Amino acid sequence: MTGKFVTIEGPDGSGKTSALKGIIEKIKVLLATELVVTREPGGNPISEAVRDVVLNQDYPEMDKRTEALLFAASRRQHIVETILPALEANKLVMCDRYVDSSIAYQGAGRDIGMQAVADMNLFATNGTEPDLTLYFDVPSEIGLKRIFEHRQNEVNRLDDEKLAFHQKVRKAYQQLAVENPERIVTIDAAQPLDKVIEDCIKVLMKKLPESFK
Amino acid sequence: MTGKFVTIEGPDGSGKTSALKGIIEKIKVLLATELVVTREPGGNPISEAVRDVVLNQDYPEMDKRTEALLFAASRRQHIVETILPALEANKLVMCDRYVDSSIAYQGAGRDIGMQAVADMNLFATNGTEPDLTLYFDVPSEIGLKRIFEHRQNEVNRLDDEKLAFHQKVRKAYQQLAVENPERIVTIDAAQPLDKVIEDCIKVLMKKLPESFK
Repeated sequence: MTGKFVTIEGPDGSGKTSALKGIIEKIKVLLATELVVTREPGGNPISEAVRDVVLNQDYPEMDKRTEALLFAASRRQHIVETILPALEANKLVMCDRYVDSSIAYQGAGRDIGMQAVADMNLFATNGTEPDLTLYFDVPSEIGLKRIFEHRQNEVNRLDDEKLAFHQKVRKAYQQLAVENPERIVTIDAAQPLDKVIEDCIKVLMKKLPESFK
Repeated sequence: MTGKFVTIEGPDGSGKTSALKGIIEKIKVLLATELVVTREPGGNPISEAVRDVVLNQDYPEMDKRTEALLFAASRRQHIVETILPALEANKLVMCDRYVDSSIAYQGAGRDIGMQAVADMNLFATNGTEPDLTLYFDVPSEIGLKRIFEHRQNEVNRLDDEKLAFHQKVRKAYQQLAVENPERIVTIDAAQPLDKVIEDCIKVLMKKLPESFK
């Protein structure tokens, strides 16, 4: 495996998806290697079919462990069909959300337990771990305000949560960052978008191997 | 939890589903407690939707770990909607296939690894383990012959396997029986159906608590 695997993480409203667009534009010019930008479910039919079940509003009875297993199944297929082939072809893969999201949202947010969700996801990833994670940290009040501003676009069950939930998710991310200092770099996502993008580019240029530049 | 949870396990063609019908008829008369007979996906909409994805013939690209995670997700919802409520209501639950099937089929048969599949399924069961498992042991040649005789009824991807696969599955079940002597009782499923049923009834009457009789 000669490629590099970068994940972008953070609570809803951290602005990571907007920032990612700006990062891509800038990094493309700076990189010699091919860039693959993706997010789960990643467009493959199996992951999409699984996500249709997870996010179906007609299933309020869905158990939180069922939900976590379905996210992991969707993830596994995305890894096999998108991430691994790109890494094997020496590409830079940038993925919007990965295992840390499940640990923060299902593990901490939904109280399954961070370690239980992490362990179960090891079965799904089977060793495909990020080389670098950009964690977009934002105070929950700011994150929630941004979510509600964008609410007309996208509503799913996971958005129907309040401040306490958002704070639990943020705390989990912060804990993961402390426990994985080699992999996770915290970005201050409360800054203006341009500054956030600039910080991410700096980290990427420092952490990516010379052969990629 | 005051109920009792019995699972019926064995490779395809071990005759467990036919035997289960006979067991139910006989045990009903002998028991004072209410009996719930079930099998995954168990008729709930979420488990059924997940199984529709797993068994969809249009997805030959499905990764074996994706498959195992989807079976576990379907199992989880079946536990929550069917098994746990029955056990809480002091009933006897008899379930045709459970975690041992995943360990034998996905873990051993598909070479993911028995321990990896067992560990991942702990996330799905979260402590709901069988009190007793009747393992229907049958030589692979006999099992396969029975499968092909019944083939017109039911065809899915898991049936499209040959003798070597069936033997790996059987060996895994035998290993599980050795490792879990308190829980798993091996039934000689090569015997005539009446004798198989009789053996199962004997084991059940011996292992079930007096309060159930």
